Amino acid sequence: RIDGDRLWDSLMEMAKIGPGVAGGNNRQTLTDADAEGRALFQKWCQAVGCTMGLDQMGNMFARYEGTDPDALPVYVGSHLDTQPTGGKYDGVLGVLGGLEILRTLHERGIKTKHPIVVVNWTNEEGTRFAPAMLASGVFAGKHTQDWAYDRKDAKGLRFGDELERIGWRGDEEVGARKMHAMFELHIEQGPILEAEGKDIGVVTHGQGLRWIECTVTGKESHTGSTPMHMRVNAGRGLAQITELVHEIAMKHQPNAVGAIGHIDIYPNSRNIIPGKAVFTIDFRSHLQEVIDAMLEEFHDRAPKLCEALGVTLETEIVGQFNPPAFDEGCVAAVRSAAERLGYSHMDIVSGAGHDACWINDVAPTAMIMCPCVDGLSHNEAEEISKDWARAGADVLFHAVVETAGV
Amino acid sequence: RIDGDRLWDSLMEMAKIGPGVAGGNNRQTLTDADAEGRALFQKWCQAVGCTMGLDQMGNMFARYEGTDPDALPVYVGSHLDTQPTGGKYDGVLGVLGGLEILRTLHERGIKTKHPIVVVNWTNEEGTRFAPAMLASGVFAGKHTQDWAYDRKDAKGLRFGDELERIGWRGDEEVGARKMHAMFELHIEQGPILEAEGKDIGVVTHGQGLRWIECTVTGKESHTGSTPMHMRVNAGRGLAQITELVHEIAMKHQPNAVGAIGHIDIYPNSRNIIPGKAVFTIDFRSHLQEVIDAMLEEFHDRAPKLCEALGVTLETEIVGQFNPPAFDEGCVAAVRSAAERLGYSHMDIVSGAGHDACWINDVAPTAMIMCPCVDGLSHNEAEEISKDWARAGADVLFHAVVETAGV
Ligand SMILES: NC(=O)NCCC(=O)O
Ligand SMILES: NC(=O)NCCC(=O)O
Repeated sequence: RIDGDRLWDSLMEMAKIGPGVAGGNNRQTLTDADAEGRALFQKWCQAVGCTMGLDQMGNMFARYEGTDPDALPVYVGSHLDTQPTGGKYDGVLGVLGGLEILRTLHERGIKTKHPIVVVNWTNEEGTRFAPAMLASGVFAGKHTQDWAYDRKDAKGLRFGDELERIGWRGDEEVGARKMHAMFELHIEQGPILEAEGKDIGVVTHGQGLRWIECTVTGKESHTGSTPMHMRVNAGRGLAQITELVHEIAMKHQPNAVGAIGHIDIYPNSRNIIPGKAVFTIDFRSHLQEVIDAMLEEFHDRAPKLCEALGVTLETEIVGQFNPPAFDEGCVAAVRSAAERLGYSHMDIVSGAGHDACWINDVAPTAMIMCPCVDGLSHNEAEEISKDWARAGADVLFHAVVETAGV
Repeated sequence: RIDGDRLWDSLMEMAKIGPGVAGGNNRQTLTDADAEGRALFQKWCQAVGCTMGLDQMGNMFARYEGTDPDALPVYVGSHLDTQPTGGKYDGVLGVLGGLEILRTLHERGIKTKHPIVVVNWTNEEGTRFAPAMLASGVFAGKHTQDWAYDRKDAKGLRFGDELERIGWRGDEEVGARKMHAMFELHIEQGPILEAEGKDIGVVTHGQGLRWIECTVTGKESHTGSTPMHMRVNAGRGLAQITELVHEIAMKHQPNAVGAIGHIDIYPNSRNIIPGKAVFTIDFRSHLQEVIDAMLEEFHDRAPKLCEALGVTLETEIVGQFNPPAFDEGCVAAVRSAAERLGYSHMDIVSGAGHDACWINDVAPTAMIMCPCVDGLSHNEAEEISKDWARAGADVLFHAVVETAGV
C-alpha cells in the first residue's frame, strides 16, 4: 500500500504554489507558478532516482527504471495546471499519485519489469489557452504542434512563446514515445461516486463531446422606444435554445448531458434589445449514436425556432471528440486492484474529458476515479478526503505495478 | 425659420470630437472627448453673446438675454454625451438645435421677453455612470448630489472625481434655477414617425419604467460530469424569465414593452453549468396601471418558475420612474408650431427616458421628436436626414420663441 499521509502532505505542499483567493489554486498553465510547480515536481522525482524527459510541448516524463531495458514503459499521470479558480486536486492527484507509486517502490527497493514514467501533461485545463487537453492532444496526433504554439491567451500571448519564457520547452519530439500502457487517476468532478458511497470509480468509457458555438443575430434597438412587434430580440433565441438543449439531453438521460455554459450578449446594455447572442452548447454522451441523435434533433429544431423569432442562427463546431472506450485489459487491472484491496467500487463513465481520453487512441489506457465532495470541481472549494486520495492511489499503485510486472 | 445647413454643419463638426469606430461617436460622459465637446459648445454660445453658467453636476447653461430682466428663462436643450457606440444625433440635436435658435435670433437682432437658456445636461446616457439622466435627475431632486458623485464607472472611477478632472465642475447649486418652461428636441430612437411618414412627433407623455435586476442562483458544476437530474442551472432561470417578460409585455401591447438587455453569466465558461445569472428586465408603459399590472404578474409567476427549476431568485428595482405627462400648454405650443410651419405631425409617447422627463416635475415641459432611420439609435449607424433635423429645429424655434414672447 502507498503512504496516504505522504501523498496528502505533497498535495498540500504543491497547493502552496499559485494559491487561489479562497483556499484553492490559481496555477494556470505556463505562468510563473506553473514553472515553480514543475520544478518542485522535478525535484521530488529526482529524489527517487528518476531522470526527467521534456518534450517540445513541455510535457514532463519522470522515468523510474525497470529491470528489462527493452520493455516499453508504463505511463501514469495527469496534469499540474489548474483553473484560475481551481481546486487542489483536479489533475494534481493523478501526478502526485504517480509520484507516490515511485516513492513506495523506491523506499522498498522494488523495481518493476517495465520502467514506470510519471507524466505531467501541459495545459490540460484549456482556460488560458483553449482547447483543453492541448498537449496530450498534440501527443496523440489530434493537433499539430504549430497550431498549438499559436494558441493565444486573453492578453494575446502565444502558447509557444510562454512555454519558452517559463523555461519548460524541451527538445524531445512530441508523441515519439511508445507506451506499454497509461493510467490516470483523477477526481470524479461529479457527484455519482459520493452519492453511491463508492471509494473507486472504474472508468470504462469517456463521453464524447460536441461544442456548438451559436451566433444568434437579431437587431439592436432601444428597449423603450421599439414597439413589441418591431423587435428582433436575439436574447429570445438564446432563451429558446437553452430550453431546447435541455429538452434534447433529457430525452437521452442518463446517457447524455447538455447545457450552455458560455454566453455573451451584445451590446449587453440595460436599455438595448440584444442584437446578438453568442453562446456555446456542450452536448455529451458515451454513446456515439446518442451524440449523433442529439445533433440531428438540434439542427432540425433550432433553425425553426429562430426563424419563427425572425433571428438568424449560425453554428460552428468548436470542440469535438468521440466517446473513448478504455482498454479492456487496463480497465480489468483497475477493477481487480480495487477488488483485491477491498475498496468499494463501481464502473463509471468519465463525464469530463481527460488527457487519458486522447492517449487512449495511441496506447492501452484506463482511468481511476475517486469521489469529490458534492461533485464540486473547477471551484476553489473543491474537496476530497485523505481516505479517498489514499484509496485512489492504492488502486493506481496496484494496477500500474501489475501491468509493469514484478 | 432656422438655418438647416448651419445646424447640420455644427452637428458634423461636433461629431468629429470623440469619433466612434463605425461612423458614429464615442463621446462618453466625463471623458476628455466630453470636455472637448463642451468647450466647442461654449465657444459657439459665446460667439452669439451668451454667458455660460455651470453647476456642481457640470450642467451647462448658456444664457441669451431677454428684454425683461425679471422674467424666468425658457430653457431648451438636451445632452452632448453619447453611448460608447453611439450616434451623432442622440442628444446632440437637442443641444445644437437650441444653439441654432440663438444663432437665428442673434443674426436677426431679435430679443425675446424671457431669456433663453440652452442647456447641456451631464451624463444623460448613463452607460459609463448608471443611471441615465443622472444630472437632470439631481436637478429635479430625484437623487442627491452626493449619491451622484459616488457613482462609479467600470474602472472604479467616481463621477465626482472625473467631473473635477475634466474641469467642468461648476460652483452653482444644482436645481436652484427656476424655469418658465423647458423644451427638448430629440430623435425618436424608435420607428414610429418614419413608419407613419411624419416629420414631427408632438410628445404628450413619456413611458414610466421599472428596471428589475434579477439574480438567479443555481449551482456551478461541470457540464460533462454532472448528471442531468443533479443540475441546478441558473441559465434556465434566465431563459424562462426571458420568455415570461416577453409574454407579459405582449399582453399589454401597444401600451407596454418589456425585454432583457443586460445579462451576466457566472462563471461563463463553456464547460461549467451557470451557477449564477444576473440580468436586468426593462418594463415600460405610459400607463401607470399597466406598469403595476406587469410587475404584479412578474412577481407572481417568476418565483414559481424558479422554484420549479430549483434555482433561487432575488430581485431588486435598480431604476424606476412613473409615466410623465407633459405640460399641456407647452405641448400645445409644439403642436401649433408644427401646424403653423406646415410640417406633418402626430402625437406620440416617448418610449425612452429623457432629461425632459425629470425636468417635467419641476417646470412646465414638452418634447419634440423627429424621425430617425429604421428607428435605430444607440448604434453608430444611427441616421437622420437634414430635412428632419431642420423641421425639428424649426418647430423648436417657434415653440420656444412663442413661449418666451417677442
Ligand atoms: N477534466 C476536465 O475538466 N477537462 C476539461 C475538458 C472538459 O470539459 O471535459
Ligand atoms: N434617450 C435615452 O436613451 N435615454 C436613456 C434612458 C432610457 O433607457 O430610456
